[in-house]
Amino acid sequence: MGNLFFEPSTRTSNSFAVAMQRLGGTVVHFSESTSSQTKGETMVDTVRILAGYCDCLVIRHPGKGAIQAVANSIVHTPIINAGDGIGEHPTQALLDVFTIREEIGTVNGLTVTMVGDLANGRTVHSLARLLCLYKVKLRYVTNRDEFKMPLEVKSYVNDRGIPQEEMTSLEEALPDTDVLYMTRVQTERMLGNEDARSDQFVITPELMTLAKPRGMIVMHPLPRVGEISPKFDSDPRAAYFRQAEYGMHVRMALLAIVLASQK
Amino acid sequence: MGNLFFEPSTRTSNSFAVAMQRLGGTVVHFSESTSSQTKGETMVDTVRILAGYCDCLVIRHPGKGAIQAVANSIVHTPIINAGDGIGEHPTQALLDVFTIREEIGTVNGLTVTMVGDLANGRTVHSLARLLCLYKVKLRYVTNRDEFKMPLEVKSYVNDRGIPQEEMTSLEEALPDTDVLYMTRVQTERMLGNEDARSDQFVITPELMTLAKPRGMIVMHPLPRVGEISPKFDSDPRAAYFRQAEYGMHVRMALLAIVLASQK
Amino acid sequence: MGNLFFEPSTRTSNSFAVAMQRLGGTVVHFSESTSSQTKGETMVDTVRILAGYCDCLVIRHPGKGAIQAVANSIVHTPIINAGDGIGEHPTQALLDVFTIREEIGTVNGLTVTMVGDLANGRTVHSLARLLCLYKVKLRYVTNRDEFKMPLEVKSYVNDRGIPQEEMTSLEEALPDTDVLYMTRVQTERMLGNEDARSDQFVITPELMTLAKPRGMIVMHPLPRVGEISPKFDSDPRAAYFRQAEYGMHVRMALLAIVLASQK
Repeated sequence: MGNLFFEPSTRTSNSFAVAMQRLGGTVVHFSESTSSQTKGETMVDTVRILAGYCDCLVIRHPGKGAIQAVANSIVHTPIINAGDGIGEHPTQALLDVFTIREEIGTVNGLTVTMVGDLANGRTVHSLARLLCLYKVKLRYVTNRDEFKMPLEVKSYVNDRGIPQEEMTSLEEALPDTDVLYMTRVQTERMLGNEDARSDQFVITPELMTLAKPRGMIVMHPLPRVGEISPKFDSDPRAAYFRQAEYGMHVRMALLAIVLASQK
Repeated sequence: MGNLFFEPSTRTSNSFAVAMQRLGGTVVHFSESTSSQTKGETMVDTVRILAGYCDCLVIRHPGKGAIQAVANSIVHTPIINAGDGIGEHPTQALLDVFTIREEIGTVNGLTVTMVGDLANGRTVHSLARLLCLYKVKLRYVTNRDEFKMPLEVKSYVNDRGIPQEEMTSLEEALPDTDVLYMTRVQTERMLGNEDARSDQFVITPELMTLAKPRGMIVMHPLPRVGEISPKFDSDPRAAYFRQAEYGMHVRMALLAIVLASQK
Repeated sequence: MGNLFFEPSTRTSNSFAVAMQRLGGTVVHFSESTSSQTKGETMVDTVRILAGYCDCLVIRHPGKGAIQAVANSIVHTPIINAGDGIGEHPTQALLDVFTIREEIGTVNGLTVTMVGDLANGRTVHSLARLLCLYKVKLRYVTNRDEFKMPLEVKSYVNDRGIPQEEMTSLEEALPDTDVLYMTRVQTERMLGNEDARSDQFVITPELMTLAKPRGMIVMHPLPRVGEISPKFDSDPRAAYFRQAEYGMHVRMALLAIVLASQK
């Protein structure tokens, strides 16, 4: 497996690597800083060469749509999108849905509340689309206009008959919530907006007394920078570290399916 | 296998790593930026320590002759030169000759035309020497005096009775050429000479109408930065991406031979 | 195995990786520069996520006590301390004692002389403590007050009835020494003290004529920057490169024990 990260990432890169290694395969890594990209090579050339070495490629890139564009020109080697800027992060959505099923037992009938920066957080874009395959209610909680869920995603959800609601109060959203999906304010995509975090939502044990005491979970794609107090980590509803581990298993399954279909 | 790169490289580093892993072995990586070189350790000490951990070492270094110098002081562990500055790049030459044989069927009787920066491109130095084992004609096409093939290489070729010709027109060289070997202008070795690429040779589908329509190939050690138009990539004569993949197989063979001789 | 290095290291990182790979396991690497630490994630979160992917973790961190603090909060995954700033470096101490046994045959009855920067060199702190399990004599040779062995370590040694002696002359210490343990002046921990090396002790073939001609060894945790002349490398008493290789074997043994106890 070729692991091509044109943008830094701990858990996605490592969880794919571990997944492939646990399946008995091996991995080569490519990251922009240690590569011939500094010699002026195009991304397409880099990917094409690694496609000649590897049985599958995992790519993360900061440019929305960049991975699909490259995949269109590489015929024989399967390419897995590991996140393309503010575009999609499809394997995250798969592991998110897997987490809900594993933790609660079903996805149908649940109220899923997404909180934080829904404009720039690609995980919630992919997740909202994927949840349209189920019978759910979606809630988007933001405290700034520039954090609202993009119109494009809302239209997609609406066209599939999934009820969705925009809210500004987490206190109001919490009581009926089965899955609370927290996201980080993506300050690295918001240079010059340093105070974006100052008024962000923060999950604390106190706040969570407003939520269902059991049968609900708090998720986060991680890394977190303050949206969830570490004091809440020991609460059984805190599912985010289990969610990260499920990611490894989901990626093992995905790689096994993709590589089996290659034979 | 220890992969020691004192200079960045995508395809050489990764193709050696993949080669070793496909043979069932494992790899440890050392690159200058992430290492104790920052603690002032000499290269010889670094190599000696890794030689104690590994069954073979692959080394790239920007200093001409640096790898041979180190290899002279390491007795028990085989060392493979993966490029030493403007010196040699022997495994590239092996894969280049393998590419010619695989694509055309033989090396003997061919006219091989090398184009671009023949002064600083180490791949053409190693290739010209290796081709002296065959019955070939060599052509060197450059448009600047500072890009000419070094006298040292030309003397070596001449001493072995191989005909060689220096030219300045690619149009003139193309019609009889069986193997067109393009190289990149090594701007990272030519600081302060930014316009060196402005008048470089560029392979386009139009230009290639002057070449043989079949039985000839275009090669390039990659990365390219503009010497070959991507529009030419779909031409069957465009062998450079296949060449990169052959590199992995050649390095597998080389590692298998080297390690078998260790037992 | 997860290899988490929050501080650069060649031989420790690579020797753990090679050790795990030689045992048939696989490795994922995390280093600060290529990670989501740049997104503001805490070290504990990073470690916890990787603990979910891996069967054991190896961590190096510049903060004294940082690894123990993290280990206290990670329950199910064993964590090996690969060096915590000026704190401890326990696997180095294990390989140091293994080296003495392997080279001399026993540890009991020996005079072990530690030289250089004993204040900031964590290897000598761990080694001095570990040697208290044997019947040895310790000598500390320093030429500056700020390089002296910390009081804390000396108290620990004293409480266990091990004789220790502080000296300023290497010439005086050499004749009775069985194990000469050289250390590097840790300039990266001593910014603004550039001349700290100017008067350091340097091992040369000439100086070593004062030492026992056989049955004694010179050790060094490496990297060295000038404390031992390369001219001494070919002397049979120069054990430092063998010591580095023993490190790989000791770490293999440690990993095998730790992982076996997990099953």
